[in-house]
Amino acid sequence: MIWHISLSGTGGQGIILAGIILAEAAILEGKQAIQTQSYGPEARGGASKAEVIISDAAIDYPKIVVADILLAMSQEACTKYVGLLKKGGKLIVDNTNIQDIPAIDAEILSAAITKAAREQLGNAMFANIIALGVLVAGTGIVARESILKAVLRRVPKGTEDVNQRALEIGFHLGDVAK
Amino acid sequence: MIWHISLSGTGGQGIILAGIILAEAAILEGKQAIQTQSYGPEARGGASKAEVIISDAAIDYPKIVVADILLAMSQEACTKYVGLLKKGGKLIVDNTNIQDIPAIDAEILSAAITKAAREQLGNAMFANIIALGVLVAGTGIVARESILKAVLRRVPKGTEDVNQRALEIGFHLGDVAK
Repeated sequence: MIWHISLSGTGGQGIILAGIILAEAAILEGKQAIQTQSYGPEARGGASKAEVIISDAAIDYPKIVVADILLAMSQEACTKYVGLLKKGGKLIVDNTNIQDIPAIDAEILSAAITKAAREQLGNAMFANIIALGVLVAGTGIVARESILKAVLRRVPKGTEDVNQRALEIGFHLGDVAK
Repeated sequence: MIWHISLSGTGGQGIILAGIILAEAAILEGKQAIQTQSYGPEARGGASKAEVIISDAAIDYPKIVVADILLAMSQEACTKYVGLLKKGGKLIVDNTNIQDIPAIDAEILSAAITKAAREQLGNAMFANIIALGVLVAGTGIVARESILKAVLRRVPKGTEDVNQRALEIGFHLGDVAK
């Protein structure tokens, strides 16, 4: 049995979080789930939508098979997903956690992401925001001011300053790694 | 130009949040983006992955075209997405925000979700968690204890109790609406 569930509303109603929670609940009971948000011009208007597919069995759904950019924050993830990276793509590794980088035909940007989170911000939990900074500085996929705006929108109130600092540490690490 | 970006690591590193932020940054600068997490047996192991597609132009990517269940939390979302619902599907509407329910061949569960969030919890921001309760009680898509576990994992520390109460209010509203 496969269920397709659409959650819809306006920005700020927590629709995306609801979709993530629903998908995770399905996983907790041994089902499989895919959770997707599509953002486009219509998402900037009023109505927005998150989609969740829940299934008792494996879901036959197109996944990304070739990535232009792969961020790997753990050794296991790096080993497991490096085959996704296209030839000439960019691999960004957190070398705090990854010692063994597979030999591949890709540009490798290596940075001590988790180490910087721990030593400069006192908490490894900021590694994801630092990683975004490394990724944006290293690839130019979006502008630095865009990722900053998006970070400030999503992080809990009261943590804006430390997350901005995390992002800037990431920009610096990304610039140096290039 | 379309970029496929995979973000990978282990649970707890904030990979999903990083994917959401990256997609939102792209939207902020007028690009289009899709952000997906696939959860499956492998997600319960070590390595996990979020995927982001960023494009200058419209992304040709399969979306859900027929939903078994549609949650609508705003009038605009209800009007816009009700066509997605399959015949005989379930439409869950937040009747605090939606007065005009289209005539459709579906089971309609109507509940005052945002009103309950405001009046019983003092903040409309809990509407998404109440909505999950209504959805789970009204559809049985996952067990109540699974959604509770998933809620408690995702909400900010210190807000577990109020979010559990939100979910239970939703279960009650869903039971009554059936």
